[in-house]
Parts: sequence; C-alpha cells; structure tokens
Amino acid sequence: MTEFELIPRYFKQSFPTHPSVVLGLGDDAALCTVPPGMQLAIAIDTLVAGVHFPHHTAPEDIGYKALAVNLSDMAAMGAIPSWFTLALTCPQIDENWLAKFSQGLLKLAAATPVSLIGGDTTAGPLTVTIQIAGLLPANSALQRRGAQPGDAIYVTGYLGDAGLGLASVQGKLTLSPAATQYVETRLNRPTPRLLEGQALRNIATSAIDISDGLAADLGHILVASEVGATLKLTQLPLSKVLREHLSPTAAWQLALSAGDDYELCFTVPSNRELELSKALPTGSYTKIGIIDQAVGLRCLDENGQAFFLKKGGYQHWSPNQDLDCNSWNRPTKAQGITPLEGMQSPKNNTP
Amino acid sequence: MTEFELIPRYFKQSFPTHPSVVLGLGDDAALCTVPPGMQLAIAIDTLVAGVHFPHHTAPEDIGYKALAVNLSDMAAMGAIPSWFTLALTCPQIDENWLAKFSQGLLKLAAATPVSLIGGDTTAGPLTVTIQIAGLLPANSALQRRGAQPGDAIYVTGYLGDAGLGLASVQGKLTLSPAATQYVETRLNRPTPRLLEGQALRNIATSAIDISDGLAADLGHILVASEVGATLKLTQLPLSKVLREHLSPTAAWQLALSAGDDYELCFTVPSNRELELSKALPTGSYTKIGIIDQAVGLRCLDENGQAFFLKKGGYQHWSPNQDLDCNSWNRPTKAQGITPLEGMQSPKNNTP
Repeated sequence: MTEFELIPRYFKQSFPTHPSVVLGLGDDAALCTVPPGMQLAIAIDTLVAGVHFPHHTAPEDIGYKALAVNLSDMAAMGAIPSWFTLALTCPQIDENWLAKFSQGLLKLAAATPVSLIGGDTTAGPLTVTIQIAGLLPANSALQRRGAQPGDAIYVTGYLGDAGLGLASVQGKLTLSPAATQYVETRLNRPTPRLLEGQALRNIATSAIDISDGLAADLGHILVASEVGATLKLTQLPLSKVLREHLSPTAAWQLALSAGDDYELCFTVPSNRELELSKALPTGSYTKIGIIDQAVGLRCLDENGQAFFLKKGGYQHWSPNQDLDCNSWNRPTKAQGITPLEGMQSPKNNTP
Repeated sequence: MTEFELIPRYFKQSFPTHPSVVLGLGDDAALCTVPPGMQLAIAIDTLVAGVHFPHHTAPEDIGYKALAVNLSDMAAMGAIPSWFTLALTCPQIDENWLAKFSQGLLKLAAATPVSLIGGDTTAGPLTVTIQIAGLLPANSALQRRGAQPGDAIYVTGYLGDAGLGLASVQGKLTLSPAATQYVETRLNRPTPRLLEGQALRNIATSAIDISDGLAADLGHILVASEVGATLKLTQLPLSKVLREHLSPTAAWQLALSAGDDYELCFTVPSNRELELSKALPTGSYTKIGIIDQAVGLRCLDENGQAFFLKKGGYQHWSPNQDLDCNSWNRPTKAQGITPLEGMQSPKNNTP
C-alpha cells in the first residue's frame, strides 16, 4: 500500500460531516465556512510514543486520546468542535495497527461529533499531531486571563486518576481489576469537558484544561491574569480509587502535579455562583480555592500549613519524569522538593 | 528552559499579525474570524528528519521549508494564507538550533505574510508539522477535480531542480558552486506560487502543487477529474542547470518523478488561454500537454514515442527512495522500469 491510499482507506469513511465543511479529505486543502457572528478557536497538540504514552499503548487508545486532548482545548475555550486535521507519522504500514488507531479516533469523533477534514501520513517514529477547530459566538471565548482576586477556583471531575493510571500501566503498583480499569481508562480515554466549557462561557472569568497537572495549569491562569491563588488541598476532588490506594499527601501530590486528567480548572466571581449552580450539574465540579491579589500559588494542607510539591507539573525534556511511587508518601526537601515559583516560605514541609 | 517557555521565546515575537487573528499564541486555543463571503482553506503537512530532509539540513532551511510546503498547498487552492500552527518535536532543547529554525520560519512568514497562532513543542525525534489556513472567496477554490478533455496542461517555473538538489546534498554528483547553490536553494527554500494560484482562481479548471513529482501529482488531477493526459516531454520546462548537467532522458526522469519542486500544475480550457496570458507573466508558466478522454498518463519523447518512468513519484515507506544517478541515463526495463498505471503499452522503451 502506498501513502496515497492510507488516508482514504482508514480515515475517509464514516467520519461525521460538520455543516461547515464544504470540501473534506482528498484535495490540497479542505474548504470550510464559518457562520456569521461566530469565531474560530484553533489548537494543536502532538502525542509522541514513549513521551506522551507508553510504546505498548493500544492503538485504539492512542487514536482516542490524540483527539481527546485536542477536544479538551476546545472545552477550555468554551468552543463547539467542528473539524480537525491529522498528521500521523508511523514507522511502517501496519494495517492492523492503522485500523485500530482509526477505530479509536472515529469512536470519539462520531460521539462528539467532529469532522476529519485533512491529513498527512509520513514515515518515521510514531507521532500523532491533531489540529482542531471549534466555533463559538464572537467575543465569548473562555481565556486564561480574566481571573480576579476574590474569584472562587473550581475544577470539574476528579484529579490525579490519570497519574495513578500511568503508574499502573508502568507496573509500579498493583490495583484490583476494577480499579485498574478505572484509572487506565481515565489515562487513555480522557473525557473532554465540552458541555461544561460551553456552559461556562458567560460565567467563568478564566479557564484552562488540566493537561500538565493542576499546579502547572492553574499557574498559567495566574500568570496570564496577574494574580495569585490559595488552594485548600482537603477540598481537591479525589476519586474513591485514589483515596483508597494513596495517603492524602500522595493523592494531593498526584492531583497537583500529574498530568493527563483533562478536567477543566476555572474561576467564577462570587456574584455568579448561583448561575454556575444552574449551569453545571451538582457534583460535576468542586470549589478548591480562591484567587488572591498576591502572586504565587499557595497550597494549604488540613492544618492550614503550606504543602510543597515535588515538581510543578509535567515538563518534557526534564529528568525524573517517571512517577516515583516510593517517595509519594514522604515528600521532603531532601528528596528534591522545590517550592513553586512565588510560593510562600515553608513553615512545615513534612505535612 | 522548560517546554512552556519555548514557544514564547522563539516563536512569539516578530511574526506578522493577520487581521483575522483575534487571539494568538498563549492560550488553550487561538481565536480567529473569517470575513463574510470568504471560505477557509486548511491543509497540514509534516516533515520528518531523515525522510523529508537529510539530518544535516540547516535549521533555517528546515523552518523555511516546513512553512513553504504548506503555503504551496494554499497556492494550489488559490487561497491567501492567513495563519498557521506549528507542532515541533525535537530531541532536545538546543537553543542555537531553535533560534535558527525560527529565523527561517519567520523569514518566510514575514514575507508572505502569515501569522503563527498556535504551537506545541514536544520531545522526540525531529518532526515538524504545520497546519495552515487561508482565505478565499466562497466557491472560488481551485480543486483537483474539474479538468476536462481538451484542456491544456501547464506548470509554473522549472521542474526537476529540487531532485538535482537532493542528489547534490547527498553527494551523488558534483556541480559548480553557482549550480550547487541554485539547486540546493530550490530544494531547501522552495517558492510557493501564491500569486499564481490566486490569479488562476477563475481561469484554471483544476490545480495541484507538485510535491511528489509531476507524474504522481498530475495523476491526482487525472483520477479526481476522471480523465487522462498526454505530455510532450520536450516541452517540460527545465532550468539551464538541469539541461547542462543531465541528458534529456535523465532530466525528464527527474522532472516527472522527483518531488519537492512545489511548482503548480494546472489545466485551462482553450477558450481561457487569452485570460491566462493576461493573468500570469510570460515565461512564468509553460504548456506541457493536454487532457484526454482516455484515462492514464501518456508521456511522449521527441519522436512521439512512449517514455517510461522508473517510478511514479515519491512514496514513503518504499524501497529505493534515493535518486539513482547511475541509471538516470539508461532507464531500461531491466533496471526496474514500470509503466504508470493506465499508461499505453510500450512501443519503444529505450528512448
């Protein structure tokens, strides 16, 4: 099979067609329209084998996740996904692998729905890049800037599950079959919070999706908004599985610093909390802290003492990427804890 | 330096801002508008080190070319480039490399002009994916389908230079310094034919850019339009450098089958040839053949005899990718010549 036949064979069929798509796959470019009064939100994300997912990850999961992480960016802007393009680099033509990859991709694309309008397939180490576009009414997008002192900080869903899922697929801990399935699904098939993002358009003052860990991603809101924040770690939403398998300290560590949860973090002024309660189902979101005037991120434990992170979030090209299960329960300075930039001086670093 | 600082440091500054861009780099997604009555053309192309360019290619050239090949897709649609996103995967943070890569990218972006609105930087083997968007009046895009029997076939510029450039950078032949600079610039810094594509919008019945060799890319027009074509090889536009260094047969081989020229191939009905002559400068394009009813591509040599290609164009994952200089002058069946699909039976295979 040649390059030219790859895209039609595996990716052309069965994908939904968005009304904005005038010409889809098969020419030098696709053609799309944007309805009057609407804006386009555009994002791009790459997953590299061995960096963003283990090499042995199921191809269906790779296809699913590559789209999910991009849909999550649309959720963070409050946009309705419309179409995407796929740049797939793979070492060889493995028809079985490609069929499964496209199945995973199609499953989420059909459920969303979102159209595949263009693609490029090249030979090389396995890398999946998706660029996605979504529509939203002009001037209604959620952005990172906009958080104000006094705004409450919220997150959707649970935090830290994907981090536990990574530890599980890496064989670093053993969970029950049900718990394994739960955390690995959270890792491999994240749920982009699209409806939540759209519902927050006229309510939230800022929003971001949590791809690199709460501390790092909330940090982006703080920098863009030129504010600080205080989190109460006892309020972090933790799943039953996480609570059953980790100490509170270890669970907080994961929730704050492990990536791949793809929940939304957003801020809401106090005078819109009633609107928020009407816009999102009870239990689908949790208040975790407050925006402060003073820059920096302060994390308080159950005693109101500062809690220090081992790392600030996922960074490519950094050493010690792997979750270090051995130290989860004893994060001390001697093990390399570094305070987040702008964090208060430590009063007690052995929570 | 961390991932988060890469994009602002190297890619945020100095890029032109397109009026359609409401929010550029730095949030979960960019925000863009599309003027009323306009459509978006969207394309994506990936370059992989060792596949699409030799590993030792200058970083400025990689940056320049990654954008150029995408702009070429806009040219083939007749679109005016507006913005692009960049997904850059590189093995490590090499500040010198990144600075040069972004210089090459910026040079072409500023000259076009086109805005960088989003990006993702990841760790892994060097891979550059750009997704580009352009604007054009609704229902005016050039497409691959639309060629009619009797239409004349044209190409812009010269063909085969980039193929000779590849042979030069691979050390397979030695040229004069001036000739080396000419063909390697043609390989590394192709000129996207943007103005030509826009000028052809109401004139050409079909168009494509030549990325994989004339035979393969014209083949896409033929398949999409359900027609065939006959080319007169003596009419192929060949640069002085190509003519001086290769036999006619070898030059035709390169022009037909070597990729990376990024010229446009397009078809024009006879009743629009006058319009064409007013739309494009004389000498910037050449008539090379005619569209036929009978499917397949027929290439005729100086005696009107069928000429057979060694390969039909660049295909990833195929053996024998490299240019085989030794056989350029003697393409015989024994050396593995295969006729193009749908080509006439050979009457004489030693032209």
